Amino acid sequence: VGNYVLTVQYEGTRYNGWQRQGNTENTIQGKLERILERMTGRPVEVHGAGRTDAGVHSLGQTANVHLDTRISPEEIRDYLNRYLPGDIGVLQVALAQPRFHARLWAGEKHYRYRILTGPVPDVFNARYQWRHEGALDVKNMQAAAVLLTGTHDFLGYSSLKKTKKSTVRTIRTIEIRTEGAELLLDFYGDGFLYHMVRILVGTLVEVGEGTRAPEAVAMPLETLDRTLAGPLAPAQGLTLQAVRYSGPILLEK
Amino acid sequence: VGNYVLTVQYEGTRYNGWQRQGNTENTIQGKLERILERMTGRPVEVHGAGRTDAGVHSLGQTANVHLDTRISPEEIRDYLNRYLPGDIGVLQVALAQPRFHARLWAGEKHYRYRILTGPVPDVFNARYQWRHEGALDVKNMQAAAVLLTGTHDFLGYSSLKKTKKSTVRTIRTIEIRTEGAELLLDFYGDGFLYHMVRILVGTLVEVGEGTRAPEAVAMPLETLDRTLAGPLAPAQGLTLQAVRYSGPILLEK
Repeated sequence: VGNYVLTVQYEGTRYNGWQRQGNTENTIQGKLERILERMTGRPVEVHGAGRTDAGVHSLGQTANVHLDTRISPEEIRDYLNRYLPGDIGVLQVALAQPRFHARLWAGEKHYRYRILTGPVPDVFNARYQWRHEGALDVKNMQAAAVLLTGTHDFLGYSSLKKTKKSTVRTIRTIEIRTEGAELLLDFYGDGFLYHMVRILVGTLVEVGEGTRAPEAVAMPLETLDRTLAGPLAPAQGLTLQAVRYSGPILLEK
Repeated sequence: VGNYVLTVQYEGTRYNGWQRQGNTENTIQGKLERILERMTGRPVEVHGAGRTDAGVHSLGQTANVHLDTRISPEEIRDYLNRYLPGDIGVLQVALAQPRFHARLWAGEKHYRYRILTGPVPDVFNARYQWRHEGALDVKNMQAAAVLLTGTHDFLGYSSLKKTKKSTVRTIRTIEIRTEGAELLLDFYGDGFLYHMVRILVGTLVEVGEGTRAPEAVAMPLETLDRTLAGPLAPAQGLTLQAVRYSGPILLEK
């Protein structure tokens, strides 16, 4: 039995997110597992690094799965791509170290949120953007973003109910910049709570619109009160860009 | 009353093509007309340069429309983009010469067909590609393409029934090249019959697969017999890239 690492891309528009949930079959994890079960004739469980929400996309989701098979990693990749729908693709399959776990070993995740500003739509990217009418003050957004970086309890920036698990996370940096007609918000951190990136975006957009002072993004961090943060930005603007691991993960040959 | 020229982009996946047809409301032309009729309070007719089929995309469809309005071209553009769905966008609106007609004045049209070769899907471009498994002999396809350029009766390369209208068209050039994981086929010509580009692609792919000799692409030109040409390639791979006009079309100020 080998432990395989997969790099998975998807256009999340049609799916109920990454994670298989009870009877909800329309998930990325569920699609992968069903094909791998047909391939091996046994039940399998695919572990993804990030549980992306319904409608969220991925350029570099990383997952691992234990498979009892003799075919090569390239053949596993080709088998998956043959049966997956066109909006899910497996870029790479490789043999990983036996104890590698895509989520538990993940060092840093990079999420990007794309906002289309300006009056002209971008029809070929509309599924990957939030279209926002009206100007945004990028400098104020950048100033606010600095206050959100570092190690904080982000419960107030999540849709979680109070939980016994830790809601402390570290955001290494938030980069905000204009590229063409888009405003790009790049989040790099060790982990993100349920809805956290999208609520951070919704709050930063309030700063950009001028309805919230940059300093006021600290309130939800201090009070842990969700109602003091901004609205949840739409899922379609969000993409999991990459997952980084600090040590080697591939099996040495 | 001004005559306006529009540059229109669309992702054609959801639509029954450009042209409004009787009760078929789900067309690009129909969407534009309905919004402009609401804007002006009068019936309008939008003339497109190319009648793209259901599922075909556009980067540079050009259209003209006579409108009785006092608002500026930029305001017309913004009004359209405010009410159009996200997969249709108007890049530009400008005042054209009174007799300008987008289709009748069109000098050359550029269509691109995108084929994804190779084993790994490209999920963010899947809607704009035909995914073709297996290698294609690009040199043979290029040799065949030369035989298709020039002025010919393309009835055998169309889905038209016999017609009194001329089915003679001129293809100036067909460029075929690999770009990344894609094979791009660019067609430049004065006009294209119903399904013509897609049947040319289906036939060229037979040459690439080795099931048709390059010389055999001439048969449908000589016999006008549709059954001697290859299959119709899927609509989703096709994009109207640009429409060119030989003279000036904008109203001088």
